[in-house]
Amino acid sequence: MCELLGMSANVPTDICVSFSGLLERGGRTGPHKDGWGIGFYEDKGFRSFIDPQPCCDSELACLIKDYPIKSHIVISHIRQANSGGISLQNTHPFSRELWGRHWCYAHNGQLKDFNSLGLEERGARFTPVGETDSEYAFCWLMEKINQIGPEQATSCDFAYQLRPYLDQLRALGVFNMLLTDSTYLYAYCTTKLSWITRRAPFGLAQLKDVEMQVDFSAETTPNDVVTVIATEPLTEDEEWNTMEEGELLVFRQGELVCKVSANQD
Amino acid sequence: MCELLGMSANVPTDICVSFSGLLERGGRTGPHKDGWGIGFYEDKGFRSFIDPQPCCDSELACLIKDYPIKSHIVISHIRQANSGGISLQNTHPFSRELWGRHWCYAHNGQLKDFNSLGLEERGARFTPVGETDSEYAFCWLMEKINQIGPEQATSCDFAYQLRPYLDQLRALGVFNMLLTDSTYLYAYCTTKLSWITRRAPFGLAQLKDVEMQVDFSAETTPNDVVTVIATEPLTEDEEWNTMEEGELLVFRQGELVCKVSANQD
Repeated sequence: MCELLGMSANVPTDICVSFSGLLERGGRTGPHKDGWGIGFYEDKGFRSFIDPQPCCDSELACLIKDYPIKSHIVISHIRQANSGGISLQNTHPFSRELWGRHWCYAHNGQLKDFNSLGLEERGARFTPVGETDSEYAFCWLMEKINQIGPEQATSCDFAYQLRPYLDQLRALGVFNMLLTDSTYLYAYCTTKLSWITRRAPFGLAQLKDVEMQVDFSAETTPNDVVTVIATEPLTEDEEWNTMEEGELLVFRQGELVCKVSANQD
Repeated sequence: MCELLGMSANVPTDICVSFSGLLERGGRTGPHKDGWGIGFYEDKGFRSFIDPQPCCDSELACLIKDYPIKSHIVISHIRQANSGGISLQNTHPFSRELWGRHWCYAHNGQLKDFNSLGLEERGARFTPVGETDSEYAFCWLMEKINQIGPEQATSCDFAYQLRPYLDQLRALGVFNMLLTDSTYLYAYCTTKLSWITRRAPFGLAQLKDVEMQVDFSAETTPNDVVTVIATEPLTEDEEWNTMEEGELLVFRQGELVCKVSANQD
């Protein structure tokens, strides 16, 4: 199992605090030592930092932790390899361009018989570079997204069309996922994902994985809305929402804009 | 005008020395202060670091300069903006996936009427995210490469089919380019590109842009073959080859494997 971390915010916000907590799980408080990665958006621009080294020992991770890249969407992942060896091409998050947008994705879980999805090697628009179930599923999902098309009236219309494909992936095993097109952040749960939306009045919180208390009021303005999504809650003294199996949430500018439950058709 | 730097090597090699020279041109010895980027390959895996900050002041650039990421192919670029504002989405190198390979590209020069290339916004497989002539040309080129297809017998066969499209871009202005599919490094010249292949016996060289002498023999083994390509020679006391207008060179594992001259049809 790997760990996921996502953020959606209405103003460019740095992820340093949450990333610090996550980093500790990358080989120190957690077993996820087989690489890590983080993708940031600034307007439509996208950049990611990926490293097949354990993130708790990574010089690059140290820099990112202390480097306040301000972003309105972030997706991060630390990896415990199961499908695919430890290598750069197997390191999350994965990204592809579609419709002039950079899409970014990370997956926690494991999929059996993922080749049964039948992504055609030839003729497919999106082809895996590495060997993971995760990237294979991502390429298959991007094919489906391309078929859905960019002209949906609302993000909920899009989410309703997307969910059956996510369910199809969940049927192959464990599929906890974060996906973004640079505007919306999609979170889909099979077993484990929690989220919290922070807004004024901002308070104090104690990180779970490191001895560190954070005063969010010192780092924000009263109008800021910031949602953080993680495999497990990153703080001890805040109320995190636990996602249900088969639930798809859509966030924009820090706000939950759409929720598609498993029993909702 | 921007500055390009490329490397092809037969063993994973770090680019620290050449990048040090290039960095100085990013706002200090040169006018290229509008961002910088560098892309590395490790096996089929690809990662890039891009920053819209001047690279001579960039904390990230300092890290990369001292961080010996060993790679068999590198493409780097420092930018002086002409087409498209200073932003992350306009920062080179650009990358796209095709045929399960990460392609990476950087352009030096300026193209007029690049919209005349007629890359369809809808239905195009590759769509620009930012506003530069460079990314537009890259997307158009990737469409053409996809049409050429992956089944060419040799890299020269591929290069012969590629060159007319490069010529078409050159007809729109200045098009100096580095492109790679993770195995081959393609260099195409309109006005300015120089290259050098270093092999045993390795010697000493004096960097042009910084007070620094490099002893390549200390950093290499006798079997290493490393080609460096740059807008202008990076060292003073070595013999660099100057590319001609319309020339396309293909490197693999540090060796020149194909040369297509402008007058060769």
